[in-house]
Amino acid sequence: MDRKDIVETAHEMADAARRAILPLFRGTTLATESKQTGSFDPVTEADRAAERAMRDVLMRRRPDDAVLGEEFGEKRGTSGLTWALDPIDGTRAFLSGTPTWGVLIAAATDTGPVYGLIDQPYIGERFEGGFGAASMTGPNGARRLTTLGDRSLKEAILFTTFPEVGTEAEGEAFQAVSAEVRLTRFGMDCYAYALIAMGQIDLVIEAGLNPYDIQAPIAVIEAAGGIVTDWSGGAAHLGGRVIAAAGRAQHEAALALLARFA
Amino acid sequence: MDRKDIVETAHEMADAARRAILPLFRGTTLATESKQTGSFDPVTEADRAAERAMRDVLMRRRPDDAVLGEEFGEKRGTSGLTWALDPIDGTRAFLSGTPTWGVLIAAATDTGPVYGLIDQPYIGERFEGGFGAASMTGPNGARRLTTLGDRSLKEAILFTTFPEVGTEAEGEAFQAVSAEVRLTRFGMDCYAYALIAMGQIDLVIEAGLNPYDIQAPIAVIEAAGGIVTDWSGGAAHLGGRVIAAAGRAQHEAALALLARFA
Repeated sequence: MDRKDIVETAHEMADAARRAILPLFRGTTLATESKQTGSFDPVTEADRAAERAMRDVLMRRRPDDAVLGEEFGEKRGTSGLTWALDPIDGTRAFLSGTPTWGVLIAAATDTGPVYGLIDQPYIGERFEGGFGAASMTGPNGARRLTTLGDRSLKEAILFTTFPEVGTEAEGEAFQAVSAEVRLTRFGMDCYAYALIAMGQIDLVIEAGLNPYDIQAPIAVIEAAGGIVTDWSGGAAHLGGRVIAAAGRAQHEAALALLARFA
Repeated sequence: MDRKDIVETAHEMADAARRAILPLFRGTTLATESKQTGSFDPVTEADRAAERAMRDVLMRRRPDDAVLGEEFGEKRGTSGLTWALDPIDGTRAFLSGTPTWGVLIAAATDTGPVYGLIDQPYIGERFEGGFGAASMTGPNGARRLTTLGDRSLKEAILFTTFPEVGTEAEGEAFQAVSAEVRLTRFGMDCYAYALIAMGQIDLVIEAGLNPYDIQAPIAVIEAAGGIVTDWSGGAAHLGGRVIAAAGRAQHEAALALLARFA
């Protein structure tokens, strides 16, 4: 596996996605005008333009790899490597103008992601992990990513995107963990996974995820020292109910509470 | 009233607050080391350092003005102008590492704010409004701020910081509005008010606010064409239960629903 080429390709894809998305974030003149006639949806337009731009990079650089994208589905490959692409994770955040959506890019084998990248184009932050290293670049420059490590639930900060989480049972399971932690916060989409990798928070618990929602976060968080599984402690790269943790202590304590509902 | 001096003073205060806060955001080495011994709280430290830095600017430039700050209380003045300062609005966001907290600076007379500034130091975004103009600077440069104007609740995007909102009755009132809108989102603190001014969202509804939490948002949103009142339609600059709206249509429709609880 050509690690250097995988990493370079991912960055080139993220650069291309930035160029496609940023002109549509927070309504350019064009988008604003068209919104008034109701004929133009800047979120969908940005989503599609970014995935097209990323697929173009892949077709040119790595035509033998498979692709699974949120907007344009599956493309088969022969190399054994599949790219999972979510051009805008957090379309409702994007629509609302909050800078907490992201571009997700992961390269995976059958057993899970080997490399992942989370990009926030407006802030200019990029988080990456895989092949034994995790790092970020942003307004304050570059630095390594390391999770908080073990803390008790009593000390822990927990995130999810919206309070309902998923089904009623999934919401109750989340509440069981939320009741035990120091602080619960909402509304961050993929940015919450980056916060675990940065050593800022302890847990993200979500449900109903697709593979392309979680493969990049898995690669980044695991390379930073964290753990990502499903609610039963199994592999999470196919999506569904997911828990990401800064350390084994938080992971085990939260899994024990989720198990009653899983 | 020397408008130019008020604006320049506010920017100098915001610059000073940035310098005080940014080294403590997301844990410098110092903060991280000290956190491990439990002897150092970077949020409180940043909050106090930023308010001290802002008060120093005021003492030097405008010693006759009054000050009301979150951390160091009231200082009387003789000019008739009072500065309301919240050095970090969104301390829980700051603690969690999300870039959605802000520095709030407002200059007010007895009848309310005449100028306000919302600063997000990490992203490098600054929103200001008053004296007939509203504008922002950020990663994409400078632009004027204009709210969305009138939309129906059915089209509206509603924000608040946390799902409970306040008391049980306040939470029910919020739910009454939330049930009628297109999208409800959480977790943004003062950044949500900036989103109204930017023309991204329609409503922010909160309760239990202090004067220094809301005076800067009032000035910015009103200068951008929006409306900020309490839940009865009265003045909001003393805090409490607050509703901010992008246009009269959303404001009236939401007030009608809140009135049952107000």
